[in-house]
Amino acid sequence: MINEFYKDMTGKGSVIREFFTYAMAKAKEIGADNIYNYSIGNPSVPVPQEFTDYMIELLQKEDPVKLHGYSPSLGLDSTRQAVADSLNRRFDMNYTKEEIFMTSAAAGAIAHALRCVAGEGDEVITFAPYFPEYVPYVTGCGAKLTVIPADITSFQINFDEFEKALNPKVQAVLINTPNNPSGIVYSTETIEKLAALLEEKQKEYGHDIYLITDEPYREIVFAGTDAPFVSKFYANSICCYSFSKSLSLPGERIGYLAVNPACRDAQLIVKMSGQISRFTGHNCPPSIIQLAVEKVLDITSDISVYEKNMNLLYDSLSSMGYEIVKPGGTFYMFPRTLIPDANEFCWTAAKELNLILVPGDSFLCPGHFRISYCVTTDMVERSLPAFEKLYKRFK
Amino acid sequence: MINEFYKDMTGKGSVIREFFTYAMAKAKEIGADNIYNYSIGNPSVPVPQEFTDYMIELLQKEDPVKLHGYSPSLGLDSTRQAVADSLNRRFDMNYTKEEIFMTSAAAGAIAHALRCVAGEGDEVITFAPYFPEYVPYVTGCGAKLTVIPADITSFQINFDEFEKALNPKVQAVLINTPNNPSGIVYSTETIEKLAALLEEKQKEYGHDIYLITDEPYREIVFAGTDAPFVSKFYANSICCYSFSKSLSLPGERIGYLAVNPACRDAQLIVKMSGQISRFTGHNCPPSIIQLAVEKVLDITSDISVYEKNMNLLYDSLSSMGYEIVKPGGTFYMFPRTLIPDANEFCWTAAKELNLILVPGDSFLCPGHFRISYCVTTDMVERSLPAFEKLYKRFK
Repeated sequence: MINEFYKDMTGKGSVIREFFTYAMAKAKEIGADNIYNYSIGNPSVPVPQEFTDYMIELLQKEDPVKLHGYSPSLGLDSTRQAVADSLNRRFDMNYTKEEIFMTSAAAGAIAHALRCVAGEGDEVITFAPYFPEYVPYVTGCGAKLTVIPADITSFQINFDEFEKALNPKVQAVLINTPNNPSGIVYSTETIEKLAALLEEKQKEYGHDIYLITDEPYREIVFAGTDAPFVSKFYANSICCYSFSKSLSLPGERIGYLAVNPACRDAQLIVKMSGQISRFTGHNCPPSIIQLAVEKVLDITSDISVYEKNMNLLYDSLSSMGYEIVKPGGTFYMFPRTLIPDANEFCWTAAKELNLILVPGDSFLCPGHFRISYCVTTDMVERSLPAFEKLYKRFK
Repeated sequence: MINEFYKDMTGKGSVIREFFTYAMAKAKEIGADNIYNYSIGNPSVPVPQEFTDYMIELLQKEDPVKLHGYSPSLGLDSTRQAVADSLNRRFDMNYTKEEIFMTSAAAGAIAHALRCVAGEGDEVITFAPYFPEYVPYVTGCGAKLTVIPADITSFQINFDEFEKALNPKVQAVLINTPNNPSGIVYSTETIEKLAALLEEKQKEYGHDIYLITDEPYREIVFAGTDAPFVSKFYANSICCYSFSKSLSLPGERIGYLAVNPACRDAQLIVKMSGQISRFTGHNCPPSIIQLAVEKVLDITSDISVYEKNMNLLYDSLSSMGYEIVKPGGTFYMFPRTLIPDANEFCWTAAKELNLILVPGDSFLCPGHFRISYCVTTDMVERSLPAFEKLYKRFK
């Protein structure tokens, strides 16, 4: 019989998808140039040429039976070693390949990490604003997700509310820095305070609490931002990384999970991840993509356009009167709406001004809207009068 | 805290893996040419050149932002349409893209299909000998796997035992034809009898029973074999396909789920599959692999070596005295062991004769051993004296 739980979900569309679909339909009607589509977080710059060149070289020169052969369930040894080496080189860590598990991007990494350290009856805490897919990741492992309200003045962690929510059922804390949708990067001060609090609570509760760090935007950080490597600060940390944003490869579904070698169960967690894949039916990212990514671990796409767009939008919108916490990275910003109802605000922007924004309610942070500025600077420039009209429409 | 269920699994190694690891270690010691490694089902012939050429063309000519962009969660529309068209052309079916869901090979397809139609308290039936990973796929969706003992005279379905096991809790029947490890293809007679029985039981129980068909070897069928397209015979059938074997792409993790358009909930099952991915953290196979596979849907690698090896092994081993049901496809055969304990038999073959076979107990069919003949014909020829010695050793 049809599983009613998943059946019920098919009726519930994503709000982001609704705005995106509206934008696509409208673009057909009035031309793509007349729509300012800020709805989707899809990288707008190409993958580094080195990646493409190496893919072609592999296809031309490598024995195809070997090239397209099975990867071990934890990932190719050479790729895992290269990831460890790159992290050690860049962040002064001491990973070995035994602490690295190759995944289907950050989604796969987070889903595996959660299944390793949480289950039925457990609780996982995250902080608003947050990526809405955290809900199925957490409920998929049987646990319950608790969301701490945002500190909307800074989008750093709201420690007062966090401390109130902590209890012995909490097995994991899931953070996303640099953050989608706010663009904020947790400061060294924030991470130190978080680590100290978790250490204290581990002792108090008599069990480990894992810090799962969702870091697909780690490489997209703007000048002058304090952007610490989170795992340096806390032993029981599991870094979940994706190459989707830094290398502009979202469709190729590649990332990894790296467990801090200082975590007592680091290598066990990686071995368990291999077992978990057997239950979800997903065994490893594709061999050829693992091999190709190995060659570009220390570089990124030319992501300078994101910072340029951020500065242009931040300066322009702030001077118009919008209230925005200045992003330190990513390709998002998260200004306050000019009326309490973010849905009404965003639909008005879409229908009256062809300005496609996403309401903050999707990220459990009402009263805000998300701008995804992974677009051309030309589009940003052309869209500014629409933002100006939107401001005047409501103020 | 560490999830004890997955932790316990890390201690339990696969028997196939044990034999494979032994073979690798021994090969280092005495040279690969002196080991006859029949343990692993890894294709031994290259992917069709058309695939490689098209991958290179995509990398050279396509806009990389588009090429590596997100695929919709159900798969690329063009790929889904091409899969439907190919199935319709080749099997006289009437799929549309709405009945196709792109997956991470057959593992992903089966794991999704099971979650769509079964859950806690439900039962899924399969037939020995069977692929051992069915256990985690089925328990992963919360259901219980019941295994029907093999009919070792034919390796067709043991209908007497199957009828005894059927009960109202059974929501799905999972078959693998052509079969790993027996190499047997279910005949039209078998499939017709199975379909009729399931139709009858659906009426009796008042609920749908889904036939999930695991078909990665569908294209590897030998001359003269009756190899029906299963979904033609039963409306509530979900075909789970992988390109791993037919295109020699096991590491690229690509396949699909195709729900018979005659199934009332066909399109719902595909939509549900997209939701299920959100829980397992696996969203779609890689975009570039989806695109490249589109171009080679109607062809296969040059798989003639498998039939050549089968004939050579079957004729030689039969004339030595081994009892074997002649395979109709795949690159496996499943002779009877010469002593009751298949483990002892296979370890003796490995240690005394460097002949690496896999015990049938792994496939819930003791008293047999699996030969994976996706190897060179040269190796098959060189290994024949070892099979001869093995026979004499025990008879």
